[in-house]
Amino acid sequence: MIAVVGHTAIDHLFRVPKLPGRHNSTYITDHKVYFGGGAANIAAGIAMLGERCRLVSTVGGDFPGSDYDLWLHDLGIVQDFTQVKDTRTATAFIFTDDGGDQETFFEWGASVAFATAEAPALDFVHMATADPDFNVRVAQTSTFASFDPGQDLLRYTPDQLEIILANIDILFSNNHEMDRMCEMLGMERRALVASVPMVVTTRGSEGSLLCMDGEEHHVPAVRVDAVDPTGAGDGYRAGFLTAFRKGYAPIDCCRAGAVVSSFVVERTGTQTNLPDWGRMLERYRKVFGEPGKIIS
Amino acid sequence: MIAVVGHTAIDHLFRVPKLPGRHNSTYITDHKVYFGGGAANIAAGIAMLGERCRLVSTVGGDFPGSDYDLWLHDLGIVQDFTQVKDTRTATAFIFTDDGGDQETFFEWGASVAFATAEAPALDFVHMATADPDFNVRVAQTSTFASFDPGQDLLRYTPDQLEIILANIDILFSNNHEMDRMCEMLGMERRALVASVPMVVTTRGSEGSLLCMDGEEHHVPAVRVDAVDPTGAGDGYRAGFLTAFRKGYAPIDCCRAGAVVSSFVVERTGTQTNLPDWGRMLERYRKVFGEPGKIIS
Repeated sequence: MIAVVGHTAIDHLFRVPKLPGRHNSTYITDHKVYFGGGAANIAAGIAMLGERCRLVSTVGGDFPGSDYDLWLHDLGIVQDFTQVKDTRTATAFIFTDDGGDQETFFEWGASVAFATAEAPALDFVHMATADPDFNVRVAQTSTFASFDPGQDLLRYTPDQLEIILANIDILFSNNHEMDRMCEMLGMERRALVASVPMVVTTRGSEGSLLCMDGEEHHVPAVRVDAVDPTGAGDGYRAGFLTAFRKGYAPIDCCRAGAVVSSFVVERTGTQTNLPDWGRMLERYRKVFGEPGKIIS
Repeated sequence: MIAVVGHTAIDHLFRVPKLPGRHNSTYITDHKVYFGGGAANIAAGIAMLGERCRLVSTVGGDFPGSDYDLWLHDLGIVQDFTQVKDTRTATAFIFTDDGGDQETFFEWGASVAFATAEAPALDFVHMATADPDFNVRVAQTSTFASFDPGQDLLRYTPDQLEIILANIDILFSNNHEMDRMCEMLGMERRALVASVPMVVTTRGSEGSLLCMDGEEHHVPAVRVDAVDPTGAGDGYRAGFLTAFRKGYAPIDCCRAGAVVSSFVVERTGTQTNLPDWGRMLERYRKVFGEPGKIIS
């Protein structure tokens, strides 16, 4: 069982001719609602790949019985949810204009409940972006932990970040977040990377980098017709963690991550094109050949 | 019975520390949902003032049984609604930052149905902002009509505007919209004003101007502690039209409009502080003295 901690959110994706700018208004030409939230995206990815998954998250009074609730149930995800009845589930409002410019407004909503929620002791947990203090507590009580500060990196104090890095087994981030963490901690990248057993840095179309035991391994991205990059990183983590839990070597886990990610970007929405293990393996073999043997 | 034609909408008012601008994101610190839409605001104002009212509008599949639906029912408003099941009720997303800067995104939603809806023949109708072509048809088939192009003015062609102006009895607009209409029609303000029996121009804190029979009458705004200007114009129209329907002189109708407007701005939301006729009259008397006799 893989536990994933973090946001369950609703993504509102809007299209407008042009972002209005201050004191102006514009018409919305398209508005679609997708299931989102980093942790929930990863949990859905893992569940679709066939691994048992527990989602530790918070939802609002609007969630029980909603389509999103039913979808997660259908995926067989164990919902370990703090429900905050008088507030909404976290929501992202993302406006994209015809020129590709984008503005995002994120409503923390029910996710405020993380701050006071009890951190469960977990065997194998991935901490996606969420409340820093909650993640500190999870990192301290869990047996095996991976961590991804994501868009909430700026909410962490250097102290919180240090405690988490000292208590985790895998660190995920993108290139930009890695730079930012180094700045926050006043550390060289080499020293930060050496402080965690395994570090995976995703770099968009340039693929990803696995650092462990003092060595670096580059894994190329899987090229597809990308429609929407949203959720690519979450797909990567779902693929990586599922393969890791199945006992594959870390480099193969990175490849599985790249493959799942390639499915996610082929369709708008973060949970709309998740592959099962069979579909994942099929594409994996085409791109990377047969994965190595299960090693653990 | 006063009929009001136009948008029924949901207003989402968001507070953020600072508008994010292109390619950035921000956290929402407050998010409240209010009943809105120009026509529905005016209809609610009229109904609260005790006049019978019919709202000719469009709503989405999300509307029936919603709190908004129940609120309009409780007000006794006759709902003459085109329901578009597979779309949402029109929605405004309004983001205001701590510096007072604002961005608005308007989702036309179910209001697209106006384009093909049949225009009812109405005795006494106010056309609030909505589909230009629908309003043209309403103007042509109704007996007595008032019109307010509002924020949708730019959607009108000069031809549509000309047909409407030739078929209405009262024109409402703000100063800016009046200038814009003159530009669109290539007319001097004096000529445009002379082409409609009664023209009411609202000018925010400077009050309003009534033009009829070649004369101008200024009506001052009613000074209150204003919290939120949204819906002020709609309140004015509700007060004016109700008083007009009761048979008061146009100048007294403007005063009633100014009074209703003063209530609306005292609270956030457009339908959250609508007065009944008694409360309206009480403030009217304090500010303007006893209204003139009913003249028609």
